[in-house]
Amino acid sequence: MSQDISFRIRQAEEADIPQILYLVKELSEYERLRHTVTASEELYRKNGFGPERFFSALLAENTGSEGPQNFGFALYFFSFSTFTGKPSLYLEDLFVLPEYRGSGIGKRLLVELARIAHRKDCGRMEWSVLDWNEPAIRFYKSLGAKPMDEWTVFRLTEPEIKELAGE
Amino acid sequence: MSQDISFRIRQAEEADIPQILYLVKELSEYERLRHTVTASEELYRKNGFGPERFFSALLAENTGSEGPQNFGFALYFFSFSTFTGKPSLYLEDLFVLPEYRGSGIGKRLLVELARIAHRKDCGRMEWSVLDWNEPAIRFYKSLGAKPMDEWTVFRLTEPEIKELAGE
Repeated sequence: MSQDISFRIRQAEEADIPQILYLVKELSEYERLRHTVTASEELYRKNGFGPERFFSALLAENTGSEGPQNFGFALYFFSFSTFTGKPSLYLEDLFVLPEYRGSGIGKRLLVELARIAHRKDCGRMEWSVLDWNEPAIRFYKSLGAKPMDEWTVFRLTEPEIKELAGE
Repeated sequence: MSQDISFRIRQAEEADIPQILYLVKELSEYERLRHTVTASEELYRKNGFGPERFFSALLAENTGSEGPQNFGFALYFFSFSTFTGKPSLYLEDLFVLPEYRGSGIGKRLLVELARIAHRKDCGRMEWSVLDWNEPAIRFYKSLGAKPMDEWTVFRLTEPEIKELAGE
């Protein structure tokens, strides 16, 4: 699968929003969750590049002469652990276009994220993985990542939030 | 279990850090994870009330004449969902002192969090629950929360982050 490709990892800017959203939609296809994507470029602009910024992203940009503009991306933000007292780097999405896997792009994105986490004195890096995604799980375990098997995330969506809030 | 108590929900301030850390340690006892708490008041000051703020907290403050200063707390921050394009409210910890449960304190904390999430136009509220904590799971399901059973969180801690970063 390895190919003769060249790329660089860089921070995403506002002008990259269409590319980020394109990659998010490709990821959602892979996760069989495309029907749940309701995001728009406008929401990404407001929530990633407005006065209050809820995320940052890295792009694996194609620096060769052929192929897609970007091979993959990582979108992250800083959470907080009450037990460490420090921020954690939370990796919301990591994705490499399927036809470009096996070239070390995912690993390079994770290394850059680890550097960012280290500079920020983060106590942890965390991310969620679908239980059937065995290639991803093998890859993450090879980096020393531990599955938090005894925890389950619970979620409320907008209608339930409104009801609970009494709005 | 219901008692004649009075309380108010309010935002935590810097002066509340010793109380927050006390409640975090009580929570960690309940979760059988006391040995994993390495946080200090200094780290809470830096990461919650410094130039870059990674969390906010609500306190359920005792407004009666007897008992503890606070009955419980909720510590939260804003994450981001690439699929909704909106921030989510992530509830890192919700805790009520065991002897004061059954008085609606946890529910009042969650209602206030839902109001904060609604005002911020959050697409989701999320939190993690230990799989053996059946009273909590029943309570959360009664509010309409759905368990994300098909996902597992993976974690790197500081030594692995440093190694991955090549530091």
